[in-house]
Amino acid sequence: MKIMSINAGSSTLKWKLFEMPEKTEIASGMIDRLGSPKAVFKLKYNGKKTEREEAVESNEIAVLSILSALKDAHIIEHFEDITAFGHRVVAGGEYFKKSEIVTEENLDRILELAEYAPLHNKVEAYYISVFKKLVPKAIQVAVFDTSFFADIPEINYLYSIDLDYYKKYKARRYGAHGTSHRFIAQRLDQIVDGGIQDKNVIVLHLGSGASISAIKNGKAFDISMGFTPIAGITMSSRSGDLDVSVIPYLMNKLGIMDVNKMIDIFNHKSGLLGISGISADMRDIEDVAAKGNNDRAQLALDIYRNRIIKFVGSYIAEMGGVDVIAFTAGVGENSAEVREDILNAFGYLGAKVDTEKNAVRGKETKITTDDSKIAAYLVPTNEELLIAQDTYGFAKILD
Amino acid sequence: MKIMSINAGSSTLKWKLFEMPEKTEIASGMIDRLGSPKAVFKLKYNGKKTEREEAVESNEIAVLSILSALKDAHIIEHFEDITAFGHRVVAGGEYFKKSEIVTEENLDRILELAEYAPLHNKVEAYYISVFKKLVPKAIQVAVFDTSFFADIPEINYLYSIDLDYYKKYKARRYGAHGTSHRFIAQRLDQIVDGGIQDKNVIVLHLGSGASISAIKNGKAFDISMGFTPIAGITMSSRSGDLDVSVIPYLMNKLGIMDVNKMIDIFNHKSGLLGISGISADMRDIEDVAAKGNNDRAQLALDIYRNRIIKFVGSYIAEMGGVDVIAFTAGVGENSAEVREDILNAFGYLGAKVDTEKNAVRGKETKITTDDSKIAAYLVPTNEELLIAQDTYGFAKILD
Repeated sequence: MKIMSINAGSSTLKWKLFEMPEKTEIASGMIDRLGSPKAVFKLKYNGKKTEREEAVESNEIAVLSILSALKDAHIIEHFEDITAFGHRVVAGGEYFKKSEIVTEENLDRILELAEYAPLHNKVEAYYISVFKKLVPKAIQVAVFDTSFFADIPEINYLYSIDLDYYKKYKARRYGAHGTSHRFIAQRLDQIVDGGIQDKNVIVLHLGSGASISAIKNGKAFDISMGFTPIAGITMSSRSGDLDVSVIPYLMNKLGIMDVNKMIDIFNHKSGLLGISGISADMRDIEDVAAKGNNDRAQLALDIYRNRIIKFVGSYIAEMGGVDVIAFTAGVGENSAEVREDILNAFGYLGAKVDTEKNAVRGKETKITTDDSKIAAYLVPTNEELLIAQDTYGFAKILD
Repeated sequence: MKIMSINAGSSTLKWKLFEMPEKTEIASGMIDRLGSPKAVFKLKYNGKKTEREEAVESNEIAVLSILSALKDAHIIEHFEDITAFGHRVVAGGEYFKKSEIVTEENLDRILELAEYAPLHNKVEAYYISVFKKLVPKAIQVAVFDTSFFADIPEINYLYSIDLDYYKKYKARRYGAHGTSHRFIAQRLDQIVDGGIQDKNVIVLHLGSGASISAIKNGKAFDISMGFTPIAGITMSSRSGDLDVSVIPYLMNKLGIMDVNKMIDIFNHKSGLLGISGISADMRDIEDVAAKGNNDRAQLALDIYRNRIIKFVGSYIAEMGGVDVIAFTAGVGENSAEVREDILNAFGYLGAKVDTEKNAVRGKETKITTDDSKIAAYLVPTNEELLIAQDTYGFAKILD
């Protein structure tokens, strides 16, 4: 059964086609600079990568060109050969505590929840409609980035503000990256001795967006991202946690009248980019810092490590210890230095990195020594596969 | 030599008169509801407390009535018998890294720094002028609430935002309660075996305002309060840390146009008060929670403990372990339950509470067992004494 995972952004559309339940990745691709006359269309199939520029002026054309490319490559004969489409949806609020088939009612809900993620839910809902229209026989499933964290303990999802703001307006910690954290938790349960059902686990999703989750007895317990993904640790261009009083102070200094503009700056011009003044890309900053003549680059790296170490420390404390730490996503999978520095900070708890095993990129590996008191792993994330698995779960019943 | 410590607020004026260097408290008092025709005037002297209502319609009259009361009680003969006045000043910015004699230039600086603490510095500066005018021979010393934290490592005082916001506008973590944290650090250095110069220490100042500091090798290393005192852990009426994106979301929901109004709410209607809906006073909330039929009271207590535990955990992690934990201020000195719950959370590090010794209020006590891996103490704070000590340091040279 063919299942396609869709990860749509405002100007990108990423997808992967799986054969399920085998989990075989048949093809994948993305369209970048969507809406421009020179959009980039990438396709990976049978070990071959192709890339071309073409005008992709609407979301419909984007979807059509992906499906048509699959027909042209004889991967499918008809659009209907794809049984189901699984869509990443950023905000599920409190309503979507698990993945769901997108009925008309659910589509309306997704649109209502757009106020928590204005840049995402609307686009995602729109793509779901397009796929519905173009492949009417297929089922559409929404997989929410927040649902893994919907049931964390209320002391962790509530803020210390008027409780009515939660009751009336649902202002709470929702977290994000749930699909990745859930995927890693599932995988850890398979590879950790005795599984993770009675363990304290911390997952570090360190990509350009970055988040840290606490997972206790197999269930999500806490998450560094907050009401929105701006909160938590230092990210590529997001500030992470910040004194709220800085907002009126800087608005006044910068002559900014609209608080949303300030939030935009904290989302897009802050984090590693803001501190270093160089780039939002960790690799660029590491390159510059390695030359040893740029204090701001080194400062950005130091602050980045510090915030991660503090969040991990806070989660160890609230869980009463930690058994397993896992690293994933761009930086987590590729920077041996970051993994080693973070784990060395927990030497006081008996963490011991195996530097040879840790000298690896993007490959599932246990990176601590056998006598380490904390077992740490590199686990590559695969959100698309999890989306396909959830989608298959519905498709096989309806098939 | 007589030294007076002054702690001025917008509608209160607290003071203590010491004989130095003996550190003897000669008298103390406060004026509350200042500016009203029914201000409350309290005086404590020779073990006797008196309290009366009187019209105190200006800051000058407040100061005069305190000094006159001291004359009437024959504690002093002339105002000039008080050699020096030490004033708590909330915001010292980066300029005041230690206590200073208040010259005209320093007074201007204190007023400039009012933009970091609009409710405080102006009032404090004004009182300094009043004391200068009424007791021209005495010296006035400013003791800053931030100076203990002025030299924490830059990775801890910088936010993950555009570095220019720090360079140009000095937007950074300043912390607060520095006088208390410094007092406790000094005291710990005397009572902890071998002092604290080579130890990792965490001080929990748990009052209606509440803050946690990390002190490494005798120097301030980190502080939970941020650019302003709103940040950090859950407080009586302050929110502590919060996703900045909650601000525009709630402004929109509540129809609030001015971001400062939202910050006011996070300062005055949040924290324990906001969650519980009962009171900003921990004792009231504990009383209601003890009856067992109010979920919001218990929730407030649970969140309060959780945030403290997380901050302590994050500081343990960034220091690479902890040797000493100290509790001070209202809740820290009086709630054995809070102290015990917090320390028990660090059982995974070998912390062991001595429940008998911990059953104490406001008395300097070691509250962990001899075999506890973390040594914990209750240390009553005395910010006024520290202010007097700093002030005496200047006065004895000039005398």
